Amino acid sequence: MAAANAVQNASFGEEIVRRIDDLAAISEGSGNLTRVYLTQALREAADLILSWMREAGMSAHLDAIGNVCGRYEGERPGSPCLMLGSHYDTVRNAGKWDGPLGVITAIACIADLNRRGKRLPFAIEVVGFADEEGVRFASTLLGSRAVAGTFDESVLNARDRDGVSMRDALVQFGLNPDRIGAAARARCELLAYLELHIEQGPVLEAQDLPVGVVTAIAGATRLAARLTGMAGHAGTVPMALRRDALAGAAECIGAIEQFCRTDVAGLVGTVGYIEARPGATNVIPGEVSFTIDIRAPTDLHRKRAVADVVRQIEAIAKRRQLALQLDVTHENRTVPCAQWLKDQVGEAIAAEGFSVFKLPSGAGHDGMAMVDIADIGMIFVRCRGGISHHPDEHVEPADVDAGARVLLRVIENFRPREGSAGAG
Amino acid sequence: MAAANAVQNASFGEEIVRRIDDLAAISEGSGNLTRVYLTQALREAADLILSWMREAGMSAHLDAIGNVCGRYEGERPGSPCLMLGSHYDTVRNAGKWDGPLGVITAIACIADLNRRGKRLPFAIEVVGFADEEGVRFASTLLGSRAVAGTFDESVLNARDRDGVSMRDALVQFGLNPDRIGAAARARCELLAYLELHIEQGPVLEAQDLPVGVVTAIAGATRLAARLTGMAGHAGTVPMALRRDALAGAAECIGAIEQFCRTDVAGLVGTVGYIEARPGATNVIPGEVSFTIDIRAPTDLHRKRAVADVVRQIEAIAKRRQLALQLDVTHENRTVPCAQWLKDQVGEAIAAEGFSVFKLPSGAGHDGMAMVDIADIGMIFVRCRGGISHHPDEHVEPADVDAGARVLLRVIENFRPREGSAGAG
Repeated sequence: MAAANAVQNASFGEEIVRRIDDLAAISEGSGNLTRVYLTQALREAADLILSWMREAGMSAHLDAIGNVCGRYEGERPGSPCLMLGSHYDTVRNAGKWDGPLGVITAIACIADLNRRGKRLPFAIEVVGFADEEGVRFASTLLGSRAVAGTFDESVLNARDRDGVSMRDALVQFGLNPDRIGAAARARCELLAYLELHIEQGPVLEAQDLPVGVVTAIAGATRLAARLTGMAGHAGTVPMALRRDALAGAAECIGAIEQFCRTDVAGLVGTVGYIEARPGATNVIPGEVSFTIDIRAPTDLHRKRAVADVVRQIEAIAKRRQLALQLDVTHENRTVPCAQWLKDQVGEAIAAEGFSVFKLPSGAGHDGMAMVDIADIGMIFVRCRGGISHHPDEHVEPADVDAGARVLLRVIENFRPREGSAGAG
Repeated sequence: MAAANAVQNASFGEEIVRRIDDLAAISEGSGNLTRVYLTQALREAADLILSWMREAGMSAHLDAIGNVCGRYEGERPGSPCLMLGSHYDTVRNAGKWDGPLGVITAIACIADLNRRGKRLPFAIEVVGFADEEGVRFASTLLGSRAVAGTFDESVLNARDRDGVSMRDALVQFGLNPDRIGAAARARCELLAYLELHIEQGPVLEAQDLPVGVVTAIAGATRLAARLTGMAGHAGTVPMALRRDALAGAAECIGAIEQFCRTDVAGLVGTVGYIEARPGATNVIPGEVSFTIDIRAPTDLHRKRAVADVVRQIEAIAKRRQLALQLDVTHENRTVPCAQWLKDQVGEAIAAEGFSVFKLPSGAGHDGMAMVDIADIGMIFVRCRGGISHHPDEHVEPADVDAGARVLLRVIENFRPREGSAGAG
């Protein structure tokens, strides 16, 4: 096998864990990890990752939307690349593995090739996407959409919770909002997009396996709901005369939970954000905004569930005489991983001595955008208790090491799809 | 009657309405009226009110907690006073009448006496309390408690939503946190405390009356609840394994509403504020804070209701495996208005040609604090639809005028309680 020269000691994983900790130290505030799009913390993180890329023998730059991009040339300069990547933004009060593990592991693999002076018949690029989570502007996959050439310019006018537009935030970050198109890559430049990521669920742990082959990324629908009733004094308006927007929202949240709990085929529904206005102890809320996130194993199942949930919310609003605004803010179809990439990931896992276990991803990933310009593949790494988007998110160093070895083996044994630009 | 010389034309009400509009123009932001404690807007409002007081022939100053205080001497300087007052802070997105009407009407009455060169056998003071609503530091009646000498110094360490402590906010406002005691007044300085306020409920409208005699201020209990579950990824944690703090809070809100709706004796319960953390679309909320406000016509009824609501919330938290923190943040007993003041208000209403109608106040007022150093009385003025704490809050100019005439008549005919400091 071509991977015979790969580094075989535990320091591979240890080095990655050290860097995970270094990156996690860069946060918007102290006491927790929060690093959302276009903040000063994101900028500092970008600079650190760029330095790691250069140290690993890559040319590296920040692209037009804030992604960190590194390139390790192949035997012939200018060849199409195998693109590896993940994201380096986080949710608020995040764990430190979600995103960074894929970026740092990819760089570690390149560093290993570079130390051995090894070049492959294709280039390798590593991308750290600047906004996968979509926390700041309520629109996900901004980084990978720009690379795929599908960035929606209207998002530039979206505003964060402080009223700052994405356009102004880009300028503050040092980027030119009118130049985002420059981040786009062409299909002929990529042989494939491959991402290593923590599972963020409990399946690999239940299987007692450190790594798995991802079969597909489940689709998701997100909605923004706003209920408008009538604000009033908490002490003087009789219960029967109230049009309390928060009491209405609470009923909606209960209905969504109940509906998803009674589904037997893996439907999940989440209300993650809520705001009641005016938001004072002694005032009946006149307006409430909240978000809804719905995912299911198939597109059909998800679409039916969304329609059912919408009908229930409409009925609740009508009965309570609340005005309802309900908009789909995000919708992603289920994205399958390419068979030939699943095969190569499976071969690498087997070569490392593990059972080849296949599982879908319940979470969204940058591959959902990258599929528009490349076949995609994913490697999942086990995380403790399936916990993610939480400070308790944890990956054992031995599993980090296993993931890195599998990724390095996939890279060194990589065969482009037959008939593709770089094949033959 | 002593009020024979009172101004009898409609300009009395018109002047008050103009000033209501002038004061409402002073807000923290444009587009709505929000003027919470110790903001720049509150400072500007204070300066305007002080200028009106001086124009009305009063000596005027800002006291140690930010109340605006004016004094109109009686026939003999240094006499005990009839204290008139209300508050000049607002809730967020407020109406313009709640509070300011009482302050501005009282000043208009003094101005009328002053124009006529009329002095009474007692002094008259007008206080505009700086914080009745308790929006900023989640603790109400700060202004009147300081005057009553019952201010709780521990509130100085309370922080607003931006993390600013009340202590720091006082310094920024130009006040000395260590001098709040100087705002306290002695019982012997006051003959009574009398407040004119909008009803904030629909009862006077239903009675087709512009004014009413308040019998008592209903007690209230406020609680702060925090539910802690487990944050997690919205796409990967099966419904059955979730400990979603917001789904738990929604069930609590539904239970509170249901419990109060089925009560037949005027119980009201309100959840006015809620925050889910971390608060992102794609993250299951791990922690939710919300407030509960419960009021009932009698103290016994309210206490039983609070105990029932607490039991229900505890049961919900236990069943959902959520940790619960539930604290009483505010509790006010029902405060009766003094019989002799109710009698004098009733006489003035009758003399103005209206039926004397008595009603309790469902809302809290500064009299709840002032009762610790004086007998209290209140005059209610009708407001449209009972709407308050909302931009649609409205009082007809004719009702403003009626309220002002009644207040002026009470002042001019005022007889201190027999046996009190200023009697005889």
